[in-house]
Amino acid sequence: MGEELRGDGWAVATFRVRYAETDAAGIVHHATYLVWFEEGRSALSRLLGLPYAELEREGIDLVLSRVEARYRRPARYDDLIQVWTRADEVRSRMMRFAYRAVRVADGELLAEGVTEHIPVQRASGRPVRLPPRFLTAWSSDVAKARRLKGEFPLPELGAPLRATD
Amino acid sequence: MGEELRGDGWAVATFRVRYAETDAAGIVHHATYLVWFEEGRSALSRLLGLPYAELEREGIDLVLSRVEARYRRPARYDDLIQVWTRADEVRSRMMRFAYRAVRVADGELLAEGVTEHIPVQRASGRPVRLPPRFLTAWSSDVAKARRLKGEFPLPELGAPLRATD
Amino acid sequence: MGEELRGDGWAVATFRVRYAETDAAGIVHHATYLVWFEEGRSALSRLLGLPYAELEREGIDLVLSRVEARYRRPARYDDLIQVWTRADEVRSRMMRFAYRAVRVADGELLAEGVTEHIPVQRASGRPVRLPPRFLTAWSSDVAKARRLKGEFPLPELGAPLRATD
Amino acid sequence: MGEELRGDGWAVATFRVRYAETDAAGIVHHATYLVWFEEGRSALSRLLGLPYAELEREGIDLVLSRVEARYRRPARYDDLIQVWTRADEVRSRMMRFAYRAVRVADGELLAEGVTEHIPVQRASGRPVRLPPRFLTAWSSDVAKARRLKGEFPLPELGAPLRATD
Repeated sequence: MGEELRGDGWAVATFRVRYAETDAAGIVHHATYLVWFEEGRSALSRLLGLPYAELEREGIDLVLSRVEARYRRPARYDDLIQVWTRADEVRSRMMRFAYRAVRVADGELLAEGVTEHIPVQRASGRPVRLPPRFLTAWSSDVAKARRLKGEFPLPELGAPLRATD
Repeated sequence: MGEELRGDGWAVATFRVRYAETDAAGIVHHATYLVWFEEGRSALSRLLGLPYAELEREGIDLVLSRVEARYRRPARYDDLIQVWTRADEVRSRMMRFAYRAVRVADGELLAEGVTEHIPVQRASGRPVRLPPRFLTAWSSDVAKARRLKGEFPLPELGAPLRATD
Repeated sequence: MGEELRGDGWAVATFRVRYAETDAAGIVHHATYLVWFEEGRSALSRLLGLPYAELEREGIDLVLSRVEARYRRPARYDDLIQVWTRADEVRSRMMRFAYRAVRVADGELLAEGVTEHIPVQRASGRPVRLPPRFLTAWSSDVAKARRLKGEFPLPELGAPLRATD
Repeated sequence: MGEELRGDGWAVATFRVRYAETDAAGIVHHATYLVWFEEGRSALSRLLGLPYAELEREGIDLVLSRVEARYRRPARYDDLIQVWTRADEVRSRMMRFAYRAVRVADGELLAEGVTEHIPVQRASGRPVRLPPRFLTAWSSDVAKARRLKGEFPLPELGAPLRATD
């Protein structure tokens, strides 16, 4: 349980699989991972001191424009899960986050994913630029993560998930 | 599929169990029935010509204050389900709806429930009186349902679900 | 975050509201509380050393037969929540659990509820008696909770939620 | 409401947005689209006469290995939605389905997506070949869809969603 920010910019949120998150195949339903990724994103922004909720209070929603997830191993009820989340690309009009869901008991990579977001003014529904302090904070986080790459090795993951066009 | 209003005031919404609605016990998760009841309530207000959405546009939410559900038989993926919904009690400051979830294939009663709602002004968060045209429409519906009782017999259900205090 | 067992038999699970748990009224959707209660029940059985999962491995499901919830205050995205869960009545063929959901920031009672469960053999679908070691463990927990009543005072809650028949 | 199979192999399932599917941004939560896509997939297999449930009864799960979704426009409570689903690629060890979610009122494309699935023996957890009658049925469906391309024009959608590796 809990959440922590690693030196390489990954936020790690830890929680257990809820029974309601399983399906008749006896495993966690695939749509649940999107909810976990979102929770990981919330943990990241809380840990960076810029709660997602604060952005909401400014009338800006980070509207999801794209999600991709790959499922490697099933998770089951009561499993202790870690969701790793990192800002992967930060531009004033698009942010991409990367995620990994890992089972604590055996270190298995369960799923990985990316989400892309567009800052949108809630009142108008129009895309807007990300307010500078969010842009700065998240960009420096990405830069730091790249510098530290290699110092915090992760399991080999094959081809990274990227935009297809 | 679809929805229809019966002469005795029950709205009947028909749909199939979604896979995501099941859990690791191989049956529909109990929290799903609350979502079905809510969908039944939406169908009822659409059929009465007073969409729930219209109440929302007036800045009023029908805030759920109490829910009770009894589970009789499990439902499974792909089952065709009917949710019966009726306004059961209508007062200016409280409404109660009653629900029955039935499996079409064998007519089994799967679950029954009630919800109680308090009209609340969204802006202030304060309880308000239900706008008269909603009160009138829903009240006459309840009255008609009582007059017609017996003409539209339902399976015997034991003690009705009522408020406990 | 995390979970702990109090001396009076209440298990307390702490977690944050997920964005996906909110609805268009800007508050936590009422069906979410059933998922939280279930998570509280899981925490309780883990803390008592008899994981719910263990009962599952014996081929027994604690099938929910009844749920009742009363909603007092809305919860919002990012709120830190505590769910208090206690075995309230334990019989070989029926268990009742009681729940309270509290917002940590202001101590507000958000919702309270009860669930009733019937032990069912998964293979046959038939009700069975609860295995003795579960019955004993949970019963002594209820007895202890009653002895300690008053030592662990809780906010005044009005009429308790009880079965209606 | 309801579902129908078009001549070009798209299954069209029609239903309304449920209130529980919205979030605090006032729109349908993005994870909901995965549930809709899955429901579209269920509709497709029912319409082809090979219910997904039948595959389950043979002890085979079509395990989701990858999902990608792009979100174009928000959907709101009570919107009438069509989900278009088509088998896009069928091989004995991998199937890909394509989806489009459209709002009926204005014909707006809300989201599009693909899912990839691996047939897995439930008992062993091992990948298996898709039973021939499923492979044949779904393959001929894909072939027919390609022949008919152009006869059933769809709104221009830009670059198709494809596997990235």
